Amino acid sequence: MKKPLILVSNDDGISANGIRLLVTLMKKLGEVIVVAPDSPQSGMGHAITVGNTLRLNESHIFNDVKAYQCSGTPADCVKIAKGFILKGRKPDLVVSGVNHGSNTSISVIYSGTMSAALEGAIEDIPSIGFSVCDYSPEADISHVKDHVLKISEQVLKTGLPKGVALNVNFPKKREELIKGIKVCRQTRAKWQEVFDRRIDPAGREYFWLTGDFVNQDKGEDHDEWAIANNYTAVVPVSFDLTAYHAIGVLNKEWEI
Amino acid sequence: MKKPLILVSNDDGISANGIRLLVTLMKKLGEVIVVAPDSPQSGMGHAITVGNTLRLNESHIFNDVKAYQCSGTPADCVKIAKGFILKGRKPDLVVSGVNHGSNTSISVIYSGTMSAALEGAIEDIPSIGFSVCDYSPEADISHVKDHVLKISEQVLKTGLPKGVALNVNFPKKREELIKGIKVCRQTRAKWQEVFDRRIDPAGREYFWLTGDFVNQDKGEDHDEWAIANNYTAVVPVSFDLTAYHAIGVLNKEWEI
Repeated sequence: MKKPLILVSNDDGISANGIRLLVTLMKKLGEVIVVAPDSPQSGMGHAITVGNTLRLNESHIFNDVKAYQCSGTPADCVKIAKGFILKGRKPDLVVSGVNHGSNTSISVIYSGTMSAALEGAIEDIPSIGFSVCDYSPEADISHVKDHVLKISEQVLKTGLPKGVALNVNFPKKREELIKGIKVCRQTRAKWQEVFDRRIDPAGREYFWLTGDFVNQDKGEDHDEWAIANNYTAVVPVSFDLTAYHAIGVLNKEWEI
Repeated sequence: MKKPLILVSNDDGISANGIRLLVTLMKKLGEVIVVAPDSPQSGMGHAITVGNTLRLNESHIFNDVKAYQCSGTPADCVKIAKGFILKGRKPDLVVSGVNHGSNTSISVIYSGTMSAALEGAIEDIPSIGFSVCDYSPEADISHVKDHVLKISEQVLKTGLPKGVALNVNFPKKREELIKGIKVCRQTRAKWQEVFDRRIDPAGREYFWLTGDFVNQDKGEDHDEWAIANNYTAVVPVSFDLTAYHAIGVLNKEWEI
């Protein structure tokens, strides 16, 4: 049987520990090609590079694995893989991550990791974003290996519903093993911004955007619940943002 | 009656013609405050500035309207308005645009214009992104005035369903007046990327990301259909990306 072609990207940049782990694991499942940002791109959401040029260079940091680093965003990386590097070959799987930090809940919309996965899904390729809920780039993330492999193998085997990518978050490493895998919905939560105002050496003000996570959701079927209870959280996500239930409401209420 | 507080942002930058039009119109409806990027931010998707600092400066380009320019993305602008500038006052409406270029269909996920509107919606503020399907920054967009006002007045009056923002696109100016307003779903379509490879003066290659829009949707209830038929397209969009229909599928099919 022909080995599946697996495209690997991320948003922490090609030299991050998380993508190194992901490449090692994907080599067990197929032929791997890496196209990842040449520098960290956290919080880039679904940005693409439209008013600027892109650079692309081959990288040898994964030894025997073909790899490229791109000056653009995670979404750019998947686009340039598809539109230029792969010359018409279509990957069987796109995986992104393993991100150093949580992409549960509302964070999915700010997530560069998930934008790479959604780009894959837009191209009808089964696609997964992996994140571990530990912001330290040096954290031990070896506990996620089994589930990364299990979920990737399952998706290679059964595919995914059309128009759907997976947002997979792993709990931080604890003494207890991860209990299992839960398929969830996105938690209703938001970031309460705090702007840290400072003065630069020239006397001018500047700001750091920081924030507190506010969970507004009492349910037990969402990704924050799964993470808090030491489960791996799998949320199927869509790039069709239409709020279908609201179409009828607007057609009924509006007088225009 | 107290005048409503209206926060105006965009992604083309504070000096664009589109935001100038929007500010002029919103002054008829309430007290206006502008917080917009200090430079163009097209294609920024839902990016936020997390690894870098932000600058914020007052601007006087709208004369009697309080305005600030921010070095960040459209999403940053709404966040800093809420978290710093407005000091606890909550806007009654967030409007973003008028964007010079279409944000119909899949473009909604790449859209800085819509990220500002979605930030408003996350804060439970009725929010609208306006775009005109004409990419020229010098285009005559005066034909959108009536519908910008009508839709904004309607939203100020009846609000919007919880968790929903509006993605409003206007057709390009034609001889015929816009026929009316259609509430739509997001068109199933994608961008077929084309990478324009060039060589810089130092002999190194670089790329421009370009693309062709591929409409895969035969329906007549979506935003591309509305625009093609000279209607204003209103798509209610959600920031809950969960593909609810897929949760059951995965729970049934998966063996893990």
